[in-house]
Amino acid sequence: MNFAGMNVENDLLLRAARGEKMERYPVWLMRQAGRILPEYRAVRNSLSGFKELVETPELAAEVTIQPVDILGVDAAIIFSDILVVPEAMGLPYEMVEKKGPWFENTIRSEEQLKGIETDFNIEDRLGYVTEAIRITNRELNGRVPLIGFAGAPWTIFCYMTEGQGSKTFSESRKILYTNPTLAHELLNRITDVTIRYLKAQIQAGAHLIQVFDSWAGILGKEQYSEFGLKYLKRIADAIQEVPVTLFSKGAYASLNDIAALDCNTVGLDWNMSITEVRKAIGENRTIQGNLDPCSLYASHSDVERATNNLLDSFVSRRHIVNLGHGVYPDVDPEKVKTFIKTVKCYEIQY
Amino acid sequence: MNFAGMNVENDLLLRAARGEKMERYPVWLMRQAGRILPEYRAVRNSLSGFKELVETPELAAEVTIQPVDILGVDAAIIFSDILVVPEAMGLPYEMVEKKGPWFENTIRSEEQLKGIETDFNIEDRLGYVTEAIRITNRELNGRVPLIGFAGAPWTIFCYMTEGQGSKTFSESRKILYTNPTLAHELLNRITDVTIRYLKAQIQAGAHLIQVFDSWAGILGKEQYSEFGLKYLKRIADAIQEVPVTLFSKGAYASLNDIAALDCNTVGLDWNMSITEVRKAIGENRTIQGNLDPCSLYASHSDVERATNNLLDSFVSRRHIVNLGHGVYPDVDPEKVKTFIKTVKCYEIQY
Repeated sequence: MNFAGMNVENDLLLRAARGEKMERYPVWLMRQAGRILPEYRAVRNSLSGFKELVETPELAAEVTIQPVDILGVDAAIIFSDILVVPEAMGLPYEMVEKKGPWFENTIRSEEQLKGIETDFNIEDRLGYVTEAIRITNRELNGRVPLIGFAGAPWTIFCYMTEGQGSKTFSESRKILYTNPTLAHELLNRITDVTIRYLKAQIQAGAHLIQVFDSWAGILGKEQYSEFGLKYLKRIADAIQEVPVTLFSKGAYASLNDIAALDCNTVGLDWNMSITEVRKAIGENRTIQGNLDPCSLYASHSDVERATNNLLDSFVSRRHIVNLGHGVYPDVDPEKVKTFIKTVKCYEIQY
Repeated sequence: MNFAGMNVENDLLLRAARGEKMERYPVWLMRQAGRILPEYRAVRNSLSGFKELVETPELAAEVTIQPVDILGVDAAIIFSDILVVPEAMGLPYEMVEKKGPWFENTIRSEEQLKGIETDFNIEDRLGYVTEAIRITNRELNGRVPLIGFAGAPWTIFCYMTEGQGSKTFSESRKILYTNPTLAHELLNRITDVTIRYLKAQIQAGAHLIQVFDSWAGILGKEQYSEFGLKYLKRIADAIQEVPVTLFSKGAYASLNDIAALDCNTVGLDWNMSITEVRKAIGENRTIQGNLDPCSLYASHSDVERATNNLLDSFVSRRHIVNLGHGVYPDVDPEKVKTFIKTVKCYEIQY
């Protein structure tokens, strides 16, 4: 059975992405499968580390489904990490507690680039992700759509060259000035693998694809066009099987260019004004976002008010409700439920 | 002798800030007194740590003057740290090598706020800064203007509540939702001290004041207006003695509001388009910035080209040339010299 073609019962997310009529807005949260849920922490604490969870399909599927059961979101997103791609390409990472990702090796020269592989079989190296997708869909049994994802080439490039998180990614950006040929070569390879990886996720059953460009905001408009959008475009052009969401965090100056790509949905962080972005990009794209994740620290009535304010600001109907960033780990899940309930109770007026 | 009133020989910076006629653009670099210079590292390595340098006026003056002598910049900026203000208010910090600032205590409750002082004598607790300003001016002997500075209240608030650097400052932003009264009370106190501190710097001889709002970009437009601009406005209104520069990093949505404050100059990070910002804010403010600090990693001819491109983009004449961020520590000082020389060789056409 091909779950990719299977109808889902609650297809609000897919209708929203395609600009079809909906009775209400779909809602899910970035990082909904994660530390906010005690049920997630129970699974996570039984393991040696984050990567064991990512690499064990049964458990990845289990935590993927938790927010559907517990929070009532309108979509599941496969539990994984964007850094599985560089690892599959030959650059392993560790996830250091309280510090984030760390790569023993980085790619800053042609010599180092030689070790980077692109032609491997996706199922051989990333089969744990596609298997997790298959298990998740089997267990979800069509209740909600399942979102597959990958990091955008620019963001993956940042980690492969910097070797860890950074406020400025100056090592990564240095290469754009000192060796743009190397930068394009690495970006091209990441893009090749990412397209094949996303297609494998779709083949396994992902109903929608989101591409995360978490470090879009550290480049100016021209450099983001050359080193970011160029490769996002290749991905958007290649993925035609399912709706595509592009989330270029902080790329304020490039929103028009992003919306001009062949995507269904544009993700917004919490600092962007939905009203202004709608004015700028028009009615032909769905907007996803963008409640400030910190607003979930407020009282239940304030969460309800903030959510309703967000919904009231939608002048078009093409919206998927989400936060503007991943939900923060110390947010009370009851506040998340209030956010979700408020969206579900809000009727769309046509 | 009051150095504040003293004429400076090279007053390009002050003329640019006031919108007066100039034969060429002034140029300086954020973090020009720092790790890029071997001469700085020699001084720094002879000491126990960063704070000893900040707190020793003779040495702070010495490293302040180094870039004037060695690089030929058109302004000095007093070597110090924005975190001397919270420390003076009763919240000491450490500068942890490779990690950044760290506060043992943070302010997240009314109880903790009680320990925060505002009515102390600036000379008693921050006299090492004003003394460094006096020594610097004596030794500069009027060659170039000396810039004094402070962190903006919102940015200082971030460190006092989060206790360290952060990508999201979610602890700081949480307070805006859970206890806005506490937030405003703390912001008010920081503002009170900052105004008195800046006036003491001017009294000691600072010829221009820059206010750094390094974390402006993590707030949306409305929250930045309420928790950021409101207090920047109080500072801009209070400082009338010398020109004022406001640098709200990443506050893309609020540039018009910043330019509407009573300031002379608006600082821009490297991601902002000078052309678009000029269109948005008009001709009545000087713009400072905004070469990408990473562009100084390129070859000398590329640095020259990038600098000339920046200068060519100035349609108005009200500009102070700078990077869009502090110069990165591993940049070759010879590249910095090329940047500066290129600006100095560029004639303004009236």
